[in-house]
Amino acid sequence: MKFATLNDGSRDGQLVLVSRDLSRSVAIPQIATTLQQLLDNWQQKAPQAEEVYQALNAGSLTNSQPFEQSGCASPLPRAYHWADGSAYVNHVELVRKARNAEMPPSFWTDPLMYQGGSDAFLAPYAPIEVASEDYGIDFEGEIAVITDDVPMGIPAEQARDHIRLVMLVNDVSLRGLIPNELGKGFGFYQSKPSSSFSPVAVTLDELEGVWQDAKLHLPLLSTYNGEAFGKPNAGVDMTFDFGQLIAHAARTRPLCAGTIIGSGTVSNKQGTEYGTAIAEGGVGYSCIAEIRMIETIRDGKPGTSFMRFGDRIRIEMLDQQGQSIFGAIDQQVVEYRYQG
Amino acid sequence: MKFATLNDGSRDGQLVLVSRDLSRSVAIPQIATTLQQLLDNWQQKAPQAEEVYQALNAGSLTNSQPFEQSGCASPLPRAYHWADGSAYVNHVELVRKARNAEMPPSFWTDPLMYQGGSDAFLAPYAPIEVASEDYGIDFEGEIAVITDDVPMGIPAEQARDHIRLVMLVNDVSLRGLIPNELGKGFGFYQSKPSSSFSPVAVTLDELEGVWQDAKLHLPLLSTYNGEAFGKPNAGVDMTFDFGQLIAHAARTRPLCAGTIIGSGTVSNKQGTEYGTAIAEGGVGYSCIAEIRMIETIRDGKPGTSFMRFGDRIRIEMLDQQGQSIFGAIDQQVVEYRYQG
Repeated sequence: MKFATLNDGSRDGQLVLVSRDLSRSVAIPQIATTLQQLLDNWQQKAPQAEEVYQALNAGSLTNSQPFEQSGCASPLPRAYHWADGSAYVNHVELVRKARNAEMPPSFWTDPLMYQGGSDAFLAPYAPIEVASEDYGIDFEGEIAVITDDVPMGIPAEQARDHIRLVMLVNDVSLRGLIPNELGKGFGFYQSKPSSSFSPVAVTLDELEGVWQDAKLHLPLLSTYNGEAFGKPNAGVDMTFDFGQLIAHAARTRPLCAGTIIGSGTVSNKQGTEYGTAIAEGGVGYSCIAEIRMIETIRDGKPGTSFMRFGDRIRIEMLDQQGQSIFGAIDQQVVEYRYQG
Repeated sequence: MKFATLNDGSRDGQLVLVSRDLSRSVAIPQIATTLQQLLDNWQQKAPQAEEVYQALNAGSLTNSQPFEQSGCASPLPRAYHWADGSAYVNHVELVRKARNAEMPPSFWTDPLMYQGGSDAFLAPYAPIEVASEDYGIDFEGEIAVITDDVPMGIPAEQARDHIRLVMLVNDVSLRGLIPNELGKGFGFYQSKPSSSFSPVAVTLDELEGVWQDAKLHLPLLSTYNGEAFGKPNAGVDMTFDFGQLIAHAARTRPLCAGTIIGSGTVSNKQGTEYGTAIAEGGVGYSCIAEIRMIETIRDGKPGTSFMRFGDRIRIEMLDQQGQSIFGAIDQQVVEYRYQG
């Protein structure tokens, strides 16, 4: 099944089923009006939604509407828990290498994870509002899963069974604020503003053949100001699978239905020491920080700027037939001014 | 007004108004069935609730019920945002002193803040389930506020106007997991399991004379295994007021109605270098870590153990007439075993 949430002006939006080809949608108020409601009662309601989904794809519903990605809110416009891992350890290693720091060996066995703001997600086509370009504005293309209720202390293998939906993420980061904030020792807070998610979240049966070992084996496409910027395969170099990430999150507390767990920035090692840009025949990158780190290692200093007002990032994933699976995240950075 | 959420078996519980003396309660489904609903529409619904509250206190409602704190869930059983500051910098300074580390001077001007799990709060009388005593189980007595919608970039002075409710917190901490986790650089995650809040959350007009300068000027009482353990005044040595903490949280993103902002562990400097236990005539402590730090500084090593299975912590605050304002957090630590 594919789900989206239409922005109807309410805080939680209106849940709709979206056809497999993303062309039509239908509201299902008889089953659930919001995605959180559906997740709260998944066992009971998912089979009912599946019936409607079959009819929607068969073209036999008279009440379906054209589906517009730009009319979507985040699948969960606000969520109770959003935790982001750093499963592509290559990305972390590059960060360290760029500042001549050793990476602790435990990073290969114990996931990094931080908790992000989940009360005010951006819509997939919403502008990214930032007060200053000096904050070092960056995108981070990632995969995320939404879980049902997960008990505390669950092993990784069993945690896989709690994945209900998959989507894409833009984990917006303010690189200029990170060193000071991490230096304080309490982790990210101001340096991670509102994240955005793909218009559509899908069940695992929509990913047949490409969802294996709790990883999504397809390229994640990042297009920056109209140019191909990254296409690393999300199934490659993912050190921790989603079962391991969920188990890490649930080690000392249960997770409530609707918890979102992110993969961290998708990054492929590419068989070279530094990775390679798409223009050089490589798979490129899922964030600007990574190319800057490679420039720093190679040239002694970064050459690519972080995002400026007006810059645009598009993040998408195509299936093996070239069809968009989740719809696109497509966002432009704009200047924010506080209206007192 | 005073609000509580009764545990009725549902995920969000049933919102009730509670009489000022905590003796009676009444459901207000005609206004809101959950506290989040009320916060989502505060301007419209609060005046309606105020009318019922007056009648409840006057004893003129025929449908009120006896109020039982032990039947309560957390005021918000699950919330979209829970961020905890460290406003009592004395506490932070002691942590550093115990390990012979200098505290950066910026800690006096730039608040520390971390985001905690908000999807599965513990009820105020619920057991604290932990898998191992080796995790270093500790309580942390704190004050917290609940905001309405706060715009990004708000100044501290204006942020004060967004405080809707006040309550108490037990920010349960696993001290044994903290050094390794903070050493990884991403902040707290597994070392901060589910927090708990007082049964009752109150509006500012309930705190007349003791809510000043966005601080709550009353002693926070911690009773550990039946013995008085702490009574520091929450209005003393609070370096950052709640307006400053909210403004810090909202610097790079808006806050959604229902955001909970905590004060960090309440701690008074007490005019001595090390602070003083209640038995020694001082105001004591709001967590075990603090007395252990003082023992370490004074004796070279800590003498007090962290919590063991069976230990009990009670956190409460009395008004100037000796009446409980928020009801009590009263929790026992028990062993958790994963049921596969």
